[in-house]
This record gives sequence, structure tokens and C-alpha cells, in this order.
Amino acid sequence: MSEKLIGSCIFGQSGGPTSVINASAYGVIKTALEAKEITKVYGAFHGIQGVLNDQLYIMDEEDPEELRYLLHTPSSELGSCRYKMADPDVDDSDYRRILEIFKKYNVRYFFYNGGNDSMDTCNKISKYMKSVGYDCHVMGVPKTIDNDLYGTDHCPGFASAAKYIATSCMEINKDARVYDNRMVVVVEIMGRHAGWLAASAALATAYGSGPDLVYLPECDFSMEQFLADVDDVLDKKNGKCFVAVSEGIHYADGSFVSEAKTSATDGFGHAQLGGLASMLAEVVKAHTNAKVRGIELSLLQRCGAHLASATDVEEAFNAGRVAVEKAVEGESGYMVAFERETVDGAYHCVYKLLPLESVANYEKKVPLEWINPQHNGLTDDFIAYVLPLIQGEAEVPKEDSLPRYAKLKKVFAK
Amino acid sequence: MSEKLIGSCIFGQSGGPTSVINASAYGVIKTALEAKEITKVYGAFHGIQGVLNDQLYIMDEEDPEELRYLLHTPSSELGSCRYKMADPDVDDSDYRRILEIFKKYNVRYFFYNGGNDSMDTCNKISKYMKSVGYDCHVMGVPKTIDNDLYGTDHCPGFASAAKYIATSCMEINKDARVYDNRMVVVVEIMGRHAGWLAASAALATAYGSGPDLVYLPECDFSMEQFLADVDDVLDKKNGKCFVAVSEGIHYADGSFVSEAKTSATDGFGHAQLGGLASMLAEVVKAHTNAKVRGIELSLLQRCGAHLASATDVEEAFNAGRVAVEKAVEGESGYMVAFERETVDGAYHCVYKLLPLESVANYEKKVPLEWINPQHNGLTDDFIAYVLPLIQGEAEVPKEDSLPRYAKLKKVFAK
Repeated sequence: MSEKLIGSCIFGQSGGPTSVINASAYGVIKTALEAKEITKVYGAFHGIQGVLNDQLYIMDEEDPEELRYLLHTPSSELGSCRYKMADPDVDDSDYRRILEIFKKYNVRYFFYNGGNDSMDTCNKISKYMKSVGYDCHVMGVPKTIDNDLYGTDHCPGFASAAKYIATSCMEINKDARVYDNRMVVVVEIMGRHAGWLAASAALATAYGSGPDLVYLPECDFSMEQFLADVDDVLDKKNGKCFVAVSEGIHYADGSFVSEAKTSATDGFGHAQLGGLASMLAEVVKAHTNAKVRGIELSLLQRCGAHLASATDVEEAFNAGRVAVEKAVEGESGYMVAFERETVDGAYHCVYKLLPLESVANYEKKVPLEWINPQHNGLTDDFIAYVLPLIQGEAEVPKEDSLPRYAKLKKVFAK
Repeated sequence: MSEKLIGSCIFGQSGGPTSVINASAYGVIKTALEAKEITKVYGAFHGIQGVLNDQLYIMDEEDPEELRYLLHTPSSELGSCRYKMADPDVDDSDYRRILEIFKKYNVRYFFYNGGNDSMDTCNKISKYMKSVGYDCHVMGVPKTIDNDLYGTDHCPGFASAAKYIATSCMEINKDARVYDNRMVVVVEIMGRHAGWLAASAALATAYGSGPDLVYLPECDFSMEQFLADVDDVLDKKNGKCFVAVSEGIHYADGSFVSEAKTSATDGFGHAQLGGLASMLAEVVKAHTNAKVRGIELSLLQRCGAHLASATDVEEAFNAGRVAVEKAVEGESGYMVAFERETVDGAYHCVYKLLPLESVANYEKKVPLEWINPQHNGLTDDFIAYVLPLIQGEAEVPKEDSLPRYAKLKKVFAK
């Protein structure tokens, strides 16, 4: 462990937003403001782009009470980015610029909150600073609704999205069965390569009001089998069928179902303006002549902070807190990760550190043994995995019964 | 007022479901079970269809504690229908069948919960029973997220949908501004002829995180003006624009924008698979080259019971309760309606009775003076109208942090 560093810190948010990424921001900012080793706390405007552009908010200028509202403010309050850093061996101009900014503001701590790509960014910055002998502690704070980060039991943001999806599916299921007709509803859920979110729809089923069929990108999709599955459910369930699909479902050849605009071989070619849910609904309609409805949960599932999991909010905050605490203790080059412990049958989250290079650019998928043999539903093991994560209701501050979000001053440095 | 009748009652649900229609069901069923004049309480399976088909649930068989869960169970738990009754002067076969069922079960009270069409059904049954000299008290219980029933300040179901829409728009707005890019989001909201629901998106704006532009079916839509409005917002708001539209927006010639599959005159022809939001998003993309996203709130907005307004739940319950109380007092041929009273600056809901024929088949629209002169937003008067209705958080029963819905035995008569 290296000796304690004194200097300022920069915190940045990156990648797609979540309902609780600002809870991690609050964890970092609050802990950093309180740390005696950290002389000033900067927030990067739109992540690493804000560092490159010398656009940094002074978080010390914010009212501590107002910062607390970040716990329940969805999306990335400082602004996010999807900026991909070059390999420093090929082009180190971005890194030299970052070093310049770090020196300008005497930045000795850098905290970056994001998913796979952001951990890669974090890792590259960490290594570069080490290579040029600039003493700076770099820590990654995990975030992704997709839950696909390697080496951690789960990711902050996933559980709140899962809870939103499960609750919404319970409600949709009630609505979809209201008429005495044949009706098929298809709900499209985020998750391009990993099916964690679509799988969470199975929570609704486990609690008595959810989809009959769930399809994940972990298994090859067959339109023929899908239609046979729907026929089967329509027969057994009084002419009703509710389907949840991951946006990333793909055929055996790897091509996304959502991108199959025309297909001479299977005959299910459809215009794609409305996305996968509408397309599958139309295919089902042509096949069954049932009434159909395609629903895309779209942005709603990743920003539904009013329905956040209290467990997720707390863990997201702690991920930020632990990153700062470990950094001032001298750690660097790690991502905070979650380990699940079961004590007397109760779920506990233990925080640990993973080397950034072991996390960056890997993707964790839903284990195949948690998917049923028919590849259209989840097993009880999956439910047991996800259920503890969605527990507790976030205490969202309200103003006239509408959410009250953080109102930051956002004062730029210099 | 006629003398008190002794006999059984039938309650039915009709039309599109809402988050609180089962709260009205609970109001009717609980009050009817407790009324000494009512000997048995039947629930019609899929509304009037269940009466015609002699499919009636015996509500007396249900556990009273379980019935209470109806307060927070979305959609129509007994099943709904969209059955249109013939004019009895043209074809009275349905009415004769209903009379037969009423006589079979000694039905002396009939409560029907629905919107415009259902009040028409209710009115026709009431008149027919009177014309044939069968003593039966008929009462309508209002319901519609569309808020378009005539003669009542507002309708049960509207406020919860409005609250869902406002909260979701607040969240979407946060998400839609997260990247440093040009981004236009279009959200499509229910309401074919009346714009109350889309207008409710303006609540989000009034509370600091909502759409920049709101378009209602009360005003003619012009694609040229829409694009000019979007350009203007993109210029002023750092390249971001958030639009809310009612599904019922239409051109000056009356044709729905959503149905304009191709249009040689305005050049905005687009395939319609994905609905209005996707179509408008694509038009904006072609015009501005901004990143776009179309979001349809779809069924979510009418079944989002987890976000119901406590005021709405209470008023929906009371609408059912008052219908039964007034019927056993001898009233018939009325719909329960809401009158707004302001006492010491506080909102109060007063329950009154409206003759069914004054309600049936009229549609109440958003007053033009509550729409701004540019026809792309709402005035403070609209906010003042809707705000009291969305107050209070529904105390949704939970099981493992997911909604716990009513589990009825649903025992059929005979």
C-alpha cells in the first residue's frame, strides 16, 4: 500500500444512465468532501469528455442537503459520455491532456462510474499515470442495468431496473387479460448481449402475474419454436399469452431478430420502424389472428427511480463510498465489486476490490443452468438470485406528490 | 323517491381498465355486502356479456380481507367487455335476456362501472326495465383514464394515469438529456379525442423536468409548425428537445397523424408499424439529423397501480360506495359524479348524481383556454386543475417488495 496522497479528486459518470448512478455519485462526493486527504472535489461534465475539455464542476460549492437528493435522482446528473479512449501505445494525446488537467488541478484521486467500457477507460488512465510516474489513485465504481460486469455478484442499477420490469410486467399481465378475447402481448426489454433484465420479468411470473414466455440472448432464438410456444400457451391459458423478450435475441447464425428486416428463408420479414416488440407482435398476429400488442419498456426501465430498490440505492451509494475510502487508504487500479454472503439465511452484500484489468471488456451472461430446458423461462435459482436485490422501497422525496430531484448549482472551476 | 327494494345486485366492469377501477369494484361490493336491502352480490364475468351469458361470480363467497386487495389491484378483476347494446326499439333481444337473468337471480340493483359507452348501456337497461315494469335500481359508476365524461369534474382512473405520466416524463426527461449530443425524444400518450392525459405531461414540466412541447387533439396539428417548434427548442435548450403527443393528434382535415401512412403533399410518409411516437421521431430525425427516440407509454399508463394517486383510489372507492348507498335509498338512472369544492384553499371532492342520459355519449375535452396560444403547451390553470387530483401515495400492499394483488376465488353462481 502506498503512502497517503493529498490532493483534489475528479469524479465522472459514463455510459448509459441508471436509476441509482447518482446514488453512487453521492457516495463518492459525500465521502470525498469529508475525507481530509481530498482538498477539493470536482465533478466531470459528461465524464472523461469534461476532463479533456477542462469542464469541471466544483462539488464543494454545492449545498450538502441538496446533494443528498442525488440518492433518488435518476440518470447521470453530471452528464455522461460514450467516449472511447485510444490505446495509449497508439495515440497518447488524450492521456497527455488528462495528465495536464490532473496537474492543473492537483488531481490525486480519480473515480469513474460506469460499465465495461468505463472500466477499460479507468484501467488505461491508471496505467498511464503509473507509466509517467504521476501519483494518482484511480478507482472504478461499477454501474450498469445490464448486470454484465465480470467478477461482481451484481451491478448497481440492475436491481432497480429489474424491480421496475417485474412490477410493470405484473401490471401489464393484469391489463392484457381483461377482455374475453385472444390476446398476445410482447414486451421488449433492454439487454443486447446479456439477458439479466429480460430474465427479471420472470419475477412477475413467480409472484403470480407475469409473462408466460421469456426469451434471452443467451440462447438461440427460433421463430418457429417461438410461434409453437405461443400456440401452446394460447391453447392452455384461455387464449391469452404474454411474452417477454430481450432486445438482443438472435437466430442461430448470430443475426439479431430485431435486425431481420426481410428474410426469404423464414418468411417473417417486417419493416422495423417500431422495434422488436412490434415486429414479433405482427408475426404472431399473422400466425394466430389473435389481437396483439407490442410494448417496448425503452428508457423507462433504466430511469424509473420512483420504483428503485432500496437495497440497490444503498449498495450504489456504498460502492461510491468504498471507492473513496479505499483510495485514500492507498489503493489504486481497482473496481469496487459486490460479493453475496448469506448470514442466517439473510442476504448480505460485502464490498471488495477487483483489479480493473480483470473486469474491463468482459461480459457476464445469465448462466445457462438458470434458463429452463425449453429456453423460454427461468428457473427458481434465478429467482433466488435476483429476489434479495430488489428488496425495499426507495424513499423518494416528493414535492406535491411528484419526485423532487437534486437541483445543483453546477459551478464550473475557473 | 321510490320505496326500498329488497333483492340481489349485479356489478359489472366495462371498457378499458384503469389502475383504480377495482377500487370502485371494492366500493360497490363492500357496500353492497353490508347493505341489508341487498340479499346477494353478483359480479358479472366480463361485464354485460357475463349477464347475457349467465356467468356471474358470487361475491358473498369471497374473503372480505382478500376483497380489500382490490383497492390496489390494477385492471378489471372481474373481466371487462366492449359490448355495444342495440337500441331496444330496433332489437330488444339482449334486454329480454337481461330481464330473464334479473328475474332468475331476483336482481333489484344493477351497478355498471365504465365510460361513455357503458353509461349508455346503463341508461338503456334502466329505461328498458322501467318500460317493462320491472323494479330495478340502475346506477352508473364512472371510470376512464381519458377523463372525458361529461358533467363530472373528473373521472376515477384519470388522476392515477396522470400521475404515472407526469412521473414517467420527469424520469424520461432526465434520461433524455444525459449525453452531450442533439437528442429529441417523442412520448406518445393515450387519448384519442380528448387530450387530458397528454396534457398531464405538462405537470412534469411545471415541476422542473418535463416535455418542452405538448400536443393535444383539441387543436389541429401541423407537421411544419411542429418541426419549427422542435428546431426552436433545439436552438434554445442546448440541442435537446422532449415532446409529448396525444395519440389522437390530427391534421386540420381531421385525419389522424398516426394514420398518415403516406402523404404526397407534406412528404412525411412513413410506415406505421411502430406507432405515432416512432413515426414522429423519424420525421424529426430526417429534418434535424438529431438522435431521436420514440416512446409509447402504451398499457403501462393505465395499469400503473404502483404509482396510483391516493386521492384517486379513495374517490374511485367512494364512487362505488355512493352508487350503492343512493340505490338502496331508492335512486335509479343516475351516474355518480364528482364536484370540486375548495374549502379554505383545500381541494374537496363532493359526490353527486347525474341523470344517465345527460352523460351517455358526450365527450368532455380540455378547454381551449387551458392550452397555450402556440398550441404546444398547457397553462397554469390546467396545472391547478390536475394537481390536487394526483396527491397522495397509494399504499400498495407488497409481498417481497412486489405488488400483492387480490386473489379471488371467483365462484360462479349455479
